[in-house]
Amino acid sequence: MQALLEQIKWNADGLVAAIAQEVGSGQVLMLAWMNREALLVTIREQRAVYFSRSRQRLWRKGEESGHIQRLLELRLDCDGDTLLLTVEQVGGIACHTGHHHCFYRQHKNNDWQEVELVVKSATEIYGERVDD
Amino acid sequence: MQALLEQIKWNADGLVAAIAQEVGSGQVLMLAWMNREALLVTIREQRAVYFSRSRQRLWRKGEESGHIQRLLELRLDCDGDTLLLTVEQVGGIACHTGHHHCFYRQHKNNDWQEVELVVKSATEIYGERVDD
Repeated sequence: MQALLEQIKWNADGLVAAIAQEVGSGQVLMLAWMNREALLVTIREQRAVYFSRSRQRLWRKGEESGHIQRLLELRLDCDGDTLLLTVEQVGGIACHTGHHHCFYRQHKNNDWQEVELVVKSATEIYGERVDD
Repeated sequence: MQALLEQIKWNADGLVAAIAQEVGSGQVLMLAWMNREALLVTIREQRAVYFSRSRQRLWRKGEESGHIQRLLELRLDCDGDTLLLTVEQVGGIACHTGHHHCFYRQHKNNDWQEVELVVKSATEIYGERVDD
């Protein structure tokens, strides 16, 4: 497992970028970060586990919302500093805002305009808390 | 244009992550970075212009190879620190290695295994130089 980790170009914070892409739709769901432990747990459990930079701890995607990401395929890019995860997005919601994915704002008329509706409101997902 | 930039959460180096996704195939081609100028030029010229961290200068994707990326759509994620570009990949080659995209290595048998062939060799693309 060590050899696997050594081929990754970890940044100064010990992290690597990780893009989650939905199987079937091909939609890019989100970008997050992994440290060594997050990657090892992701591989072991075959579900996306990131490292939360804001909370400085492992972030088991879906731990509060139930919207976990099952890992189907894992790839590394040419220079070793970005991972690409093909995932099944449980619940069809990847974003903490309740949108299907995090890229719901589009550049239009010199602004970032929301072009997609939420699937569920954050309150519906989390109760009063907005997290995950 | 200033308002557009202000909604982006630039990192400590003044950069934002930018994912390029191919129109049609939906394939994630690469992850690169943009500074403010790169983003403004990208919007103005409707082609992907990144900031090269290794060369510390604007990197007009395809400037040497001809494999430019025409911009079709530009999105921003929920927390403003990642851009998603939908692009037309001219020449069908996004990676400097000559692969269609940068994610040609897959996690298999505890290793990163190349699972895609190059479209053209780097020498064919660049002559003796490997760049871009």
